[in-house]
Amino acid sequence: MLKKPYLMIPGPTPVPDRVLQAMHRPVINHRGPEYEAMFRDVCCKLQQVFKTKNEVLTFPAAGTGAMEAAVVNILSPGDKVLVVSIGVFGDRFAEIAGRYGAKVEKLDFPWGEAAAPAVLADRLNKDKHKEIKAVFITHNETSTGVTNDIKELMAACGDHPALRVVDAVSSLGAINLETDAWGVDLVVTGAQKALMLPPGLAFMAMSERAWAANKASTMPRFYWDAQSVRKSLAKGQNPYTPPVSLIFGLQESLNLLLEEGLENIFARHRLLAVMVRAGLKALGLELLAADSVASSVVTAVKAPPGIDPKQIRKIMRERYGITLAGGHKHLEKEIFRIGHLGYVVPTDILVTLAALEMTLAELKFDVVLGSGVSAAQKILLAEV
Amino acid sequence: MLKKPYLMIPGPTPVPDRVLQAMHRPVINHRGPEYEAMFRDVCCKLQQVFKTKNEVLTFPAAGTGAMEAAVVNILSPGDKVLVVSIGVFGDRFAEIAGRYGAKVEKLDFPWGEAAAPAVLADRLNKDKHKEIKAVFITHNETSTGVTNDIKELMAACGDHPALRVVDAVSSLGAINLETDAWGVDLVVTGAQKALMLPPGLAFMAMSERAWAANKASTMPRFYWDAQSVRKSLAKGQNPYTPPVSLIFGLQESLNLLLEEGLENIFARHRLLAVMVRAGLKALGLELLAADSVASSVVTAVKAPPGIDPKQIRKIMRERYGITLAGGHKHLEKEIFRIGHLGYVVPTDILVTLAALEMTLAELKFDVVLGSGVSAAQKILLAEV
Repeated sequence: MLKKPYLMIPGPTPVPDRVLQAMHRPVINHRGPEYEAMFRDVCCKLQQVFKTKNEVLTFPAAGTGAMEAAVVNILSPGDKVLVVSIGVFGDRFAEIAGRYGAKVEKLDFPWGEAAAPAVLADRLNKDKHKEIKAVFITHNETSTGVTNDIKELMAACGDHPALRVVDAVSSLGAINLETDAWGVDLVVTGAQKALMLPPGLAFMAMSERAWAANKASTMPRFYWDAQSVRKSLAKGQNPYTPPVSLIFGLQESLNLLLEEGLENIFARHRLLAVMVRAGLKALGLELLAADSVASSVVTAVKAPPGIDPKQIRKIMRERYGITLAGGHKHLEKEIFRIGHLGYVVPTDILVTLAALEMTLAELKFDVVLGSGVSAAQKILLAEV
Repeated sequence: MLKKPYLMIPGPTPVPDRVLQAMHRPVINHRGPEYEAMFRDVCCKLQQVFKTKNEVLTFPAAGTGAMEAAVVNILSPGDKVLVVSIGVFGDRFAEIAGRYGAKVEKLDFPWGEAAAPAVLADRLNKDKHKEIKAVFITHNETSTGVTNDIKELMAACGDHPALRVVDAVSSLGAINLETDAWGVDLVVTGAQKALMLPPGLAFMAMSERAWAANKASTMPRFYWDAQSVRKSLAKGQNPYTPPVSLIFGLQESLNLLLEEGLENIFARHRLLAVMVRAGLKALGLELLAADSVASSVVTAVKAPPGIDPKQIRKIMRERYGITLAGGHKHLEKEIFRIGHLGYVVPTDILVTLAALEMTLAELKFDVVLGSGVSAAQKILLAEV
């Protein structure tokens, strides 16, 4: 049976037609005036989305590239760092920092929970000699569908001088992040999430404190060197050949984001999450994260006892064209994840729930067809 | 709130990405070898979809253009014709034939019903002097959502020598039509229906009997002249400049149709119709056509008493991005129509029903959210 594709994973997001069309242009000279004008426009709009007055640096890379750039641009080998981890992507920051010779201390929270600001405050208070040079925190942990309260966590850092680094790869542009106002020193994100682009671009913004640390930092870097990106940016350029088509697309996706309005986008993502959670609960499914810490962009769902989440994803994909994400590490056999990030709208949630109901029915899970959909419909109707 | 577009009208259909991509190529010389090779391939594949061994003629035009071509290529002024009409598009054949000086007799059936083969047989039996030169019949009447039984109607023509002309604009490629096997003498269709193209192309196939009539026909024609199209076709060309981009798209849409398989496509459309009808009935809505004559490609629905169908369509479009069709003529204030024609899949029906439920709830119609969706889900689940 013919199917239409629904990419319901926490990135890459579906790419809007307007972005695809913008990308479908002949490649231009990346050292010429047309590119420079476009790139300046892009950088200016990125600052609005990042909610920062500082330059937003663009790296042709996966989001993980910007995480690496974050580490190597502000630290020196032997520096002590505190990595707050609530899942796979928190752990990744620790691994990168360790690989470059930082002394990594992890502050772990159980998967499915958010980081507790009080615990962070307590740990930093105990750092009498201010040995911790940087604190790394994940904004939205896509592996568990949990969003950390960055405003509270930044406040919890108090007057400790450690740099505050936030991985906003899956959140920036979908969940509010007041980079400057909340005192984030370094924030990174990727193209294929809320920015609604195909993968291939990563971004980083640094505060004045972070730039000062950059001067003293001795970790080896060339491609990730923030200074060289900043210098090129001043000329409307990139240090190395950028993926020009993606920059075409980025300009259009930023237009889309600013047309819709950041606050409207945050509200849309919250609505999608509330709809999907209401639908899943109505079907009797258990969610990994509590409502109070639930992500707006991805929802982790426990498969019913006796059902392999891979079976659910296979039927969803093969019969209904709906791609869901699996679980990481020890959650692989326990959960599946529904992404609702980027170019996703309420009707996508209704389709996903309807297909999930049929999938569960096929797997002999006791489900009332339409009950998940109707729970989500009630949420949506209350909005109109 | 951001929306995604669902074009749920009985043509133009949503256009698949592969077709859009095929169209996005530089225009080529329509008198050159590249075009000729492509056009020969297209014509060969059209014959498969038309289920005919005869040439399929392509006109750059709306479907109505091919209806006009049907009239002017086989008739002479003063010829008597019988037009079987069950709605707007049957009436259109009568109007065109009259405009060119044919003596038109209409065989009308109530809107919402199919043509009765026995009534047609009876009328032709009474034509002792064989004055009727042609019988015009609509295969699928999009204005009412009724499909005529062409096989039975062709059989009802018996050994009467009248040419049998079928308007298959909204059916060909979605509802089975055995052009040669059932003895259809002339069949027309359009691009923007089951062929899943943007509008701009119309097609006509003629039997040997129709070609013989063409030689004797004296109605004035230039652009619509079948002989000139046939002569050019023998050289892999068109008599006048064709819309080259649409031909690019047509080649790809024919590939898609043949890959999916005609019988699978017919089954998919039947499933869509059964799903949507089950859902609408579960919501307590009345359908214009009985199940026995219901179209696979469009469903006409009566608005609940006191609710203007335009209100329903407005809310569907503005809140949920779903475009439905209105009613024609006296049905305008009574019905709305849901198209499920061409590039449409079961998940589109689920979205449409879910949105319709919310729309009706907003209009204070007593509806159980999820009940229409679940009725359609049950139909779909029974298929898997």
